[in-house]
Amino acid sequence: MTTLIDKLQWRYATKKMNPALPVPQDKVDRILEAVRLTASSSGLQPYEVLVVNDAALRERIRVHAWNQAQVTEASHLLVFAAWDDYTAERINAAFDLVNEQRSARNEGWEAYRQQVLATYPPRGTEVNYQHAARQAYIGLGTALIAAAEEQVDATPMEGFSPAEVDEVLGLKARGLRSVLLLPLGYRQPDGDWLVNLKKVRRSTEQFVSTV
Amino acid sequence: MTTLIDKLQWRYATKKMNPALPVPQDKVDRILEAVRLTASSSGLQPYEVLVVNDAALRERIRVHAWNQAQVTEASHLLVFAAWDDYTAERINAAFDLVNEQRSARNEGWEAYRQQVLATYPPRGTEVNYQHAARQAYIGLGTALIAAAEEQVDATPMEGFSPAEVDEVLGLKARGLRSVLLLPLGYRQPDGDWLVNLKKVRRSTEQFVSTV
Repeated sequence: MTTLIDKLQWRYATKKMNPALPVPQDKVDRILEAVRLTASSSGLQPYEVLVVNDAALRERIRVHAWNQAQVTEASHLLVFAAWDDYTAERINAAFDLVNEQRSARNEGWEAYRQQVLATYPPRGTEVNYQHAARQAYIGLGTALIAAAEEQVDATPMEGFSPAEVDEVLGLKARGLRSVLLLPLGYRQPDGDWLVNLKKVRRSTEQFVSTV
Repeated sequence: MTTLIDKLQWRYATKKMNPALPVPQDKVDRILEAVRLTASSSGLQPYEVLVVNDAALRERIRVHAWNQAQVTEASHLLVFAAWDDYTAERINAAFDLVNEQRSARNEGWEAYRQQVLATYPPRGTEVNYQHAARQAYIGLGTALIAAAEEQVDATPMEGFSPAEVDEVLGLKARGLRSVLLLPLGYRQPDGDWLVNLKKVRRSTEQFVSTV
């Protein structure tokens, strides 16, 4: 399995995880590193990833996630949590970090900082949260590929009550809102109705057009 | 460059494309195939990708994209355009395709179809569009990795006027709304202020937490 196409063909939204098979931590670390390195709008990385290991917390999250068993049976549970807003503090911290890491100030970069500061905070919390949440989906797409590279199974989940999960994880106080759950583990083929079914996608002709 | 981490380290939002270097079509095709195969919510793939080759259209889009030169100077321009709504027709087409491809009806799948039909269309156009747009970001994250695997440069862009680009491409009549632009090409290091600068990301400690 060497190409990205192979990895995308291999992965699927795993319906039954084997609770007895833990994913080695170095694999999880590489998956998280890929998410950390991937793209985001203006490089602001407007989300965080929580790794929920606590069994009691996982049980509580499962209740608010349509009782999907992977939430507790997977080896690891990632929660993608977006910034609830773009504040001047968060924007400045990101731009300052760039200056610090590059040991230089760039005039164009500083002008861009001023533009972001002038436009993001005033456009409102909901617009900003939605924009931040979209970036988390880039992270999710990256995590799914990273997991496949590690031959680790994953189940991307939107089906949960964000407000309740935020409450369980205390996200509001951290200025975060849960956007996506991603259990990681190893498939348990018996008990997984999807594992042997063909991956179905619209044809290229119906998905891509050239003008 | 064999691992995903290497590919993510290599890529960057290219600021200057070499207009004289076309990307071979087989590379573009593999990038598009990766996007086609990647994950989306319930597998609905609620977006399309347009490849804009027409020079006059590219010029018109550039005007509505802060005059960013990559829009016209890149070898290829991809436009990710999300469904403007989830209609019963679109949902049924996706579920029907699955039945057709798997040559089987699955009771759980049919129950899920009814659940999606009962919940998506009534929740309103704007909610549905936002949800569809998020899925396009999974596609973008995938496209960036696919491009890096092909050693093709890319510039993800949110900085454009979607309504104007929709007009230029006639997307409204197709029930689509432009979400992201992705020029593909080869970097031209002289003239690219970003090419030699360090990639900056928050530390793992600031991006990932374990509970």
